[in-house]
Amino acid sequence: MHIVLAPDSYKGSLSSIQVCEQMKKAIHAGNPNDIVVCKPMADGGEGTLESMLYSAGGEKVYVSCTGPLGEKRTSWYVLLRDGTAVIECANVAGLLLVPASHRHPDHVTTYGIGEMIAHALDSGCTNLMITLGGSSSNDGGLGMLQALGMQAYDCKGDEVGIYGVDLFDVQTVDFSRLHEKLHQSVIYIASDVENPLTGPKGASYVYGPQKGATSEQVRRYDEALAHYGACVEAKCSQSLMMQPGAGAAGGLGFALMVLGGEIRSGANLVAEMIGLKEAIEDADVVITGEGQSDDQTAYGKAPSYVAELAREHNVPTILLSGSLAGDRTKLNDRFTACFSIVPGPATLTECMERAKEYIYQSTYQVRNIWSCKKDRD
Amino acid sequence: MHIVLAPDSYKGSLSSIQVCEQMKKAIHAGNPNDIVVCKPMADGGEGTLESMLYSAGGEKVYVSCTGPLGEKRTSWYVLLRDGTAVIECANVAGLLLVPASHRHPDHVTTYGIGEMIAHALDSGCTNLMITLGGSSSNDGGLGMLQALGMQAYDCKGDEVGIYGVDLFDVQTVDFSRLHEKLHQSVIYIASDVENPLTGPKGASYVYGPQKGATSEQVRRYDEALAHYGACVEAKCSQSLMMQPGAGAAGGLGFALMVLGGEIRSGANLVAEMIGLKEAIEDADVVITGEGQSDDQTAYGKAPSYVAELAREHNVPTILLSGSLAGDRTKLNDRFTACFSIVPGPATLTECMERAKEYIYQSTYQVRNIWSCKKDRD
Repeated sequence: MHIVLAPDSYKGSLSSIQVCEQMKKAIHAGNPNDIVVCKPMADGGEGTLESMLYSAGGEKVYVSCTGPLGEKRTSWYVLLRDGTAVIECANVAGLLLVPASHRHPDHVTTYGIGEMIAHALDSGCTNLMITLGGSSSNDGGLGMLQALGMQAYDCKGDEVGIYGVDLFDVQTVDFSRLHEKLHQSVIYIASDVENPLTGPKGASYVYGPQKGATSEQVRRYDEALAHYGACVEAKCSQSLMMQPGAGAAGGLGFALMVLGGEIRSGANLVAEMIGLKEAIEDADVVITGEGQSDDQTAYGKAPSYVAELAREHNVPTILLSGSLAGDRTKLNDRFTACFSIVPGPATLTECMERAKEYIYQSTYQVRNIWSCKKDRD
Repeated sequence: MHIVLAPDSYKGSLSSIQVCEQMKKAIHAGNPNDIVVCKPMADGGEGTLESMLYSAGGEKVYVSCTGPLGEKRTSWYVLLRDGTAVIECANVAGLLLVPASHRHPDHVTTYGIGEMIAHALDSGCTNLMITLGGSSSNDGGLGMLQALGMQAYDCKGDEVGIYGVDLFDVQTVDFSRLHEKLHQSVIYIASDVENPLTGPKGASYVYGPQKGATSEQVRRYDEALAHYGACVEAKCSQSLMMQPGAGAAGGLGFALMVLGGEIRSGANLVAEMIGLKEAIEDADVVITGEGQSDDQTAYGKAPSYVAELAREHNVPTILLSGSLAGDRTKLNDRFTACFSIVPGPATLTECMERAKEYIYQSTYQVRNIWSCKKDRD
């Protein structure tokens, strides 16, 4: 039997690699000769780099760069075996890197992300993938663009700083000294956010509050981003502010688009880079999973994308989830069958603590069904 | 697709018939043309008569008889279409018919069971099945045998009464006026209890306390049953007291054996009488289930017997349980796959209240897997 395992993480409990390991153990407990291909999935959020490293192979590249509050920190990106650099925004300028008491858009910068990109370009990478989840900034990518050579000036002609608060001063920008290798590079932006840069659905109004902005600051940031965006667009002769995804990661989406980046769904990009499609082609069945599934799982989340790929090759997909809620028919439109891993009445804590065992047991059952099918064919 | 549904009840929540209905609905939601055969199972305990009526067809026969405390009550047995009478001990002399304050072996009789048997014999039945679960008595079947014509005398030669307490007076018995049709009848005793009539594993020591006997009374009843058993054996020239099952239902097992009854596993008998084997032969898959499964499910409980029958015909069996506990490998020795119906962290109350919905959803998933297998075949 030939089984592909492509679960997402069980958030708060197990990484997708750990989930794969349990599933694999269960399948080999049934028959050590079964072919098991592990493709731990990710959606561009937490754990994406580890999943890609696991499947696509490569190395971590450590870089000394600027942290979200301007501090020096050592961070890392992944250089895949095929030469692609994968940079995780959360890893360089993430909300979790900022102490709760310091969370405020004024004091945060995306400069470090620009430094990471520059490092990758200088190392010869021409393919870049940037994941945008978990950001702490609302600087419209100002810091990142500055790290890559864009200059931003205030009304007096002085260069502005690299933090969110400096957005308010930007009057004009200059791309003439932009990192020269950007022109030869392909940038994919992994993001499932559809928000534009500004307006009621823009970065400030929708994500500002969770980054520490008051409602008055949200209003002011929205205006500042609009002005800054217009300055940038004027120089690059593109209209990008209202593009879906421009508002991702406090406007970092917009700035990466300015550099020629293309927004793609995170799960979609990850799947492509780990060769999921090729792995699925010859499988008898694909098992995916995640911590919690509901109607939304059917749209865009990693397991759903796995099922979509599998369907293209007429391979059934089973979803093993920590919890199934919402309209089940929507899940069944995607997945051949969906089971919860929970073996009976249990608390959330118990389920999270015993997730490994539960995943093992559920996978074993699914394997048994398929092996029995094979036998009966 | 051809699916046989043979769940046990989800005790405290849904009868096996209700479980079947949910499962059937789910399967027909997948494809109204699927062949669904409902064989709600039972193990000889609560709900056995309803299950048998549902599958084998027949009628309820109402009889005015003696209740466990000697009161007159109307009870009923089932007359199956094939002429078999099925009498449920719990229905005539059950523990639940006795108010908690009156539960005491001294005051309880099995007389009504004898009356039901006599009624069935008088109506022309020659096949009888008696289920022994849930009894309130510890009278060694004294009352039942008396109702069927056995006479029991005390040391003065006076006939003794019909209650538990009268056991202590029995010195001799007389079978000469036993109901004449008993000789031509076949009696099956549905019981999964292996206890002998007396001794440390006998009826009094093992089941006496739950019927209201103190430890001193347990000791005295054990002695009384031994003496009574010896009196009976002397007259029927058989050695039955130590047979497995003689101690079932406070020694009713013994008394029925005296009448020529054969002890059989409840699930086994029910399956036979509802034609489960024949139903399974051509099925693609069998779905069974129960409220709670553990290591014990693998031995003798209804779902296990269903799986055993299915295996004989090389048909896979899926167990859908309210809760899976214990050593899963033992369950998998029996069942192709076992899933809990619980969709995520949930309390027992929630699971019981929403059992219908959970069963529906889980069955739908299993059906989907099988239908997809068919499509790919």
